[in-house]
Amino acid sequence: MHFQFYNDYSETAHPACMAALAHEPTQQLAGYGLDDVSAQAADAIRAVCKSPKAAVHFVSGGTQANLTMLAAMLRPFEAIIAAQTGHIYSNETGAIEATGHKIIAMPATQGKLTPASIEAAVAAHPWEHTVRARVVFISQATELGTVYSLAELRALRACCDTHGLYLYMDGARLGAALMSHDADWDLADIAALADVFYIGGTKNGAVLGEAIVIVHPDLQVDFRYHLKQRGALLAKGRVVGSQFLALFSNDLFQSLAAHANACAERLQNGLLAMGVAFETLSSTNLIFPTLPNHAVEQLQQRYGFHIWKKVSDTHQTIRLVTSWATPMDKVDDFLNDTRLALAEGNS
Amino acid sequence: MHFQFYNDYSETAHPACMAALAHEPTQQLAGYGLDDVSAQAADAIRAVCKSPKAAVHFVSGGTQANLTMLAAMLRPFEAIIAAQTGHIYSNETGAIEATGHKIIAMPATQGKLTPASIEAAVAAHPWEHTVRARVVFISQATELGTVYSLAELRALRACCDTHGLYLYMDGARLGAALMSHDADWDLADIAALADVFYIGGTKNGAVLGEAIVIVHPDLQVDFRYHLKQRGALLAKGRVVGSQFLALFSNDLFQSLAAHANACAERLQNGLLAMGVAFETLSSTNLIFPTLPNHAVEQLQQRYGFHIWKKVSDTHQTIRLVTSWATPMDKVDDFLNDTRLALAEGNS
Amino acid sequence: MHFQFYNDYSETAHPACMAALAHEPTQQLAGYGLDDVSAQAADAIRAVCKSPKAAVHFVSGGTQANLTMLAAMLRPFEAIIAAQTGHIYSNETGAIEATGHKIIAMPATQGKLTPASIEAAVAAHPWEHTVRARVVFISQATELGTVYSLAELRALRACCDTHGLYLYMDGARLGAALMSHDADWDLADIAALADVFYIGGTKNGAVLGEAIVIVHPDLQVDFRYHLKQRGALLAKGRVVGSQFLALFSNDLFQSLAAHANACAERLQNGLLAMGVAFETLSSTNLIFPTLPNHAVEQLQQRYGFHIWKKVSDTHQTIRLVTSWATPMDKVDDFLNDTRLALAEGNS
Amino acid sequence: MHFQFYNDYSETAHPACMAALAHEPTQQLAGYGLDDVSAQAADAIRAVCKSPKAAVHFVSGGTQANLTMLAAMLRPFEAIIAAQTGHIYSNETGAIEATGHKIIAMPATQGKLTPASIEAAVAAHPWEHTVRARVVFISQATELGTVYSLAELRALRACCDTHGLYLYMDGARLGAALMSHDADWDLADIAALADVFYIGGTKNGAVLGEAIVIVHPDLQVDFRYHLKQRGALLAKGRVVGSQFLALFSNDLFQSLAAHANACAERLQNGLLAMGVAFETLSSTNLIFPTLPNHAVEQLQQRYGFHIWKKVSDTHQTIRLVTSWATPMDKVDDFLNDTRLALAEGNS
Repeated sequence: MHFQFYNDYSETAHPACMAALAHEPTQQLAGYGLDDVSAQAADAIRAVCKSPKAAVHFVSGGTQANLTMLAAMLRPFEAIIAAQTGHIYSNETGAIEATGHKIIAMPATQGKLTPASIEAAVAAHPWEHTVRARVVFISQATELGTVYSLAELRALRACCDTHGLYLYMDGARLGAALMSHDADWDLADIAALADVFYIGGTKNGAVLGEAIVIVHPDLQVDFRYHLKQRGALLAKGRVVGSQFLALFSNDLFQSLAAHANACAERLQNGLLAMGVAFETLSSTNLIFPTLPNHAVEQLQQRYGFHIWKKVSDTHQTIRLVTSWATPMDKVDDFLNDTRLALAEGNS
Repeated sequence: MHFQFYNDYSETAHPACMAALAHEPTQQLAGYGLDDVSAQAADAIRAVCKSPKAAVHFVSGGTQANLTMLAAMLRPFEAIIAAQTGHIYSNETGAIEATGHKIIAMPATQGKLTPASIEAAVAAHPWEHTVRARVVFISQATELGTVYSLAELRALRACCDTHGLYLYMDGARLGAALMSHDADWDLADIAALADVFYIGGTKNGAVLGEAIVIVHPDLQVDFRYHLKQRGALLAKGRVVGSQFLALFSNDLFQSLAAHANACAERLQNGLLAMGVAFETLSSTNLIFPTLPNHAVEQLQQRYGFHIWKKVSDTHQTIRLVTSWATPMDKVDDFLNDTRLALAEGNS
Repeated sequence: MHFQFYNDYSETAHPACMAALAHEPTQQLAGYGLDDVSAQAADAIRAVCKSPKAAVHFVSGGTQANLTMLAAMLRPFEAIIAAQTGHIYSNETGAIEATGHKIIAMPATQGKLTPASIEAAVAAHPWEHTVRARVVFISQATELGTVYSLAELRALRACCDTHGLYLYMDGARLGAALMSHDADWDLADIAALADVFYIGGTKNGAVLGEAIVIVHPDLQVDFRYHLKQRGALLAKGRVVGSQFLALFSNDLFQSLAAHANACAERLQNGLLAMGVAFETLSSTNLIFPTLPNHAVEQLQQRYGFHIWKKVSDTHQTIRLVTSWATPMDKVDDFLNDTRLALAEGNS
Repeated sequence: MHFQFYNDYSETAHPACMAALAHEPTQQLAGYGLDDVSAQAADAIRAVCKSPKAAVHFVSGGTQANLTMLAAMLRPFEAIIAAQTGHIYSNETGAIEATGHKIIAMPATQGKLTPASIEAAVAAHPWEHTVRARVVFISQATELGTVYSLAELRALRACCDTHGLYLYMDGARLGAALMSHDADWDLADIAALADVFYIGGTKNGAVLGEAIVIVHPDLQVDFRYHLKQRGALLAKGRVVGSQFLALFSNDLFQSLAAHANACAERLQNGLLAMGVAFETLSSTNLIFPTLPNHAVEQLQQRYGFHIWKKVSDTHQTIRLVTSWATPMDKVDDFLNDTRLALAEGNS
């Protein structure tokens, strides 16, 4: 089978995550997330976030985290502001709308939402004939692999405060963002700036699971009711809890993301050196090179990856994703094969 | 810590399920349930159900299975008929209603719905000023541990056919039902009679997961859209797929359930022999003995279990649940301790 | 055409309501309920309710009032307690569930909910695996024509206060209730006891419309957003506003309801004098006599009315509804025809 | 009070509509839209639409028509394609999303959707990770006063057929569109091309009401259930039915719209003659002139109208709406006052 750069959830799990799950498999634990393993994992997350009063809940996936939490934050007529490239708008099959809420999608630059676009969204929704904006949704890293800087996050926070908006961060790839060269913040900064965020485990070495961190006290109330109602309350909370306990021991969360980023960086730099153009330059584990059609076709013979978009009759942008498990020699193979393919096209 | 008879998901997983999950953890597989492991598991289920055209989907939990599938089966004004003791009505925090649908709850006998009660429900909802009944929801085993016989299932099916209703079966404890002495049917019978059912893994030895089996072809269409929209489409489908591949190899599904049932049967028979009364007699892994208050209090010092209901000022019914992992000596300990507690009360 | 006792909205409108609507038809008024006519009507309602801070909104029908207001009162996992005979549970096609909320239906006596049944409902929903009860829904008059006394209302209010519940009153027939011999309260009492109620115009002489009176200040906030979102905000608010201005001038609201009640009372007393049994005795404009089948069939030749239920093989309960427009001689005709029909059956 | 060009529902109703409503006010008619008056009105509409098998339903307002019908047309994961200026997207407080569905908003030119933008929307939603487009929503006339030509409608219809999409037309101002100089179609063409449309009464002389015309037979099934569930089934269907019976007698519908259009045309032409620029040129009863700030302020002293948008620091676009009841001398007054205001600014 071809080596795949499709995504960062192609492999099951890092051995340490698997071992955590397999530890004492017949030990009896409390159900529905009230077990000791989940409690310890929540403590570990609160510690790394320096947010001792945060509520931490574990769910099985990102769309579930988004729809359960966002619906819990809104009254029926309230809406979410997101980038047009935002996952909830472009890639979740109307999961948010299915809970009754509109997403106000704004044009984004390199996947990022700006205070100016938030203000434009608020201004366009001034009265009872329109929804009212209530939550700002951002992804960190973004769906284009870019990362909000601390200054950008502070500006978004200030804008939210001015307009009475909650700030929600989708952290499906928060690990990759954290280990990016562009990250001048840590998880404690995130917890200080966002009202709610989630830390992605599925895409960073866990068997499965995301940790929702609710910082704002108003949003902590009754959240277990929302989890249960949306089918997100796992009978065996430990299954996800154990994953996060492993990830936040010995800096595993950080080291796995750092490896994925290093693979992507080597890919991106290697391609740049060949003169390849990019949709946007990424500092995380997703990269978006634009290649001639013939090169794309040739690479598809040996690798799996998504076509991101057709750029012209002769070129396409592809998406390459690396993971905690990507072997560096596969990166080098891909670079060599690309070099050959490009050379062939030019001959 | 006390030994727990709270439920059948207190332990993480049977070693064979864990091993299946841990097998080749860095093998790259397709995302979102389109992987080979999930495909093999689906084939295994189709084979045991003798239902080669059934669609099989894997999700992480029972409430999620129920809300995703049932909402997919209904137009906005259509409703579900269920027993008042049915899990979706009594124990899922309005998950079904949150998708916009009413549950018509009917009185049940020993947790079972009858053709007569279905007909009463249909008759009470005759026109556009009422919802229209469209799905009959039953649990096999029921929430009271009882099991529908083949004759009962056939009668329900006939009633559904008469009234244009789908038959949906919640199989969170389908393994326990299957291995019950009251089961005069097999999984192929279930597939022949129900339009949709799910096979529970979470409560029968899997790490987590339920397998939704859609027999009716109309209901198979576009179901992956529903899964994604409700947050039920796992990025790593193999996580659940591998569990079912293990459960349906070497009759593991059957043997685990048989053990849980045997423990419960020994408990029930032992208590009956002491003259203990029961809310209802169960042939699966949930039993409901009624004990004097002092005995309940004494047993609570050493065991964990739920109080089901207060029967009188002097007696309470408790719920005891056994699992694939329950050690038989704990069963005997419980019986001995109960004998002592009852004797003490009589002295 | 037969004379109809089907309902109290068979006739278009009382002349005074029609005149109010037709007054200055080309006068330009503000849209969406912000007009002067609606403002005056709201003032008139606040005055009669002695509730100067109440918010008053006008909508076109009762189901719309119920679904818009109740959905606005609840968070996603919260539910409504209602009698099984309550209109929202039995007769609104799942309109409440379609907004995402469960109705906890409790057995009722003569259409009434009691503090005991509310407490039972609350006790049965104690944690995050169940919905949380948040609103108590009652109808005044009830769907069986009965009326809550002041003592009963106070007891419900006290029960709501104890359990942190809102009290909502469906007043589709509040006029009939108010003018009932059983009413030892006035509209000011209603406003003092209920958090929200609506005053029905459609069934008491108006062209159409209901006035929602929101007493509790928390529930007043942003309600126009809810109205707009549910399609309940009329472009020409005056259409309903003018109706209520007419109804609350010169005691028209009271006198129309008094007439309807007087007709029903005469019917009920006349039938009682013939030895006819009743499902329940009503003090408003709905009555429920039980008649032999042959008498029902004979009366159907000359009158329109609903069959309420089959009581036995030989008897049926029917529902007779009178209105502000019912001619008293039709009442007497009906009594005479019933006397003849009953005599014939006995001959 | 100032004369208002705010909208076309400032006046209550045309005398003929009022008279129709007031006709025989105590005649007993069947409830919930099953009355003879509504039946006659439906027949009249089917006749003018040359669509003898169309189903016709009457509701109280446009948002209600849109949300009830569109939700009825969709399965949970299906979505609507609309122009960004479309009423359901920009001006209905998330009413559609509150029923669970996403609106895919596309850029519009002069308020119109094109086959190209529909195709772009379809292409961007190809699989189960995105919603599926199912309905195309257009407004005729558009929210900018423009009118789709027959060729444009046919092209949209062909595009819908190609992609398996329903075509839904919001006809809040269908009368104005029909009487526009740009209309090279009649109502029979509309019925032949759209799957569903509604004919607006509220903005064209009726007391209130819209007539939903369901041409596609699949969409006719069970629609009364949807009406009831959304609070849109009026107890007294005749209230709206009578309005449409009046409007479709003696070409009242056409003549009222023609008057409104004539007023707007005189305004637009008069302003054009003064050199005023327009956001877009309209052929219906909404016009969008751009005026210097000082002229706007001066006109606000004597007239009511909405500011549409700020064009620059010195100019604003305003929206002027005329109605069936607009006196032509008020049009001339406005033109004179504008001429004076502009002259003053230039002096």
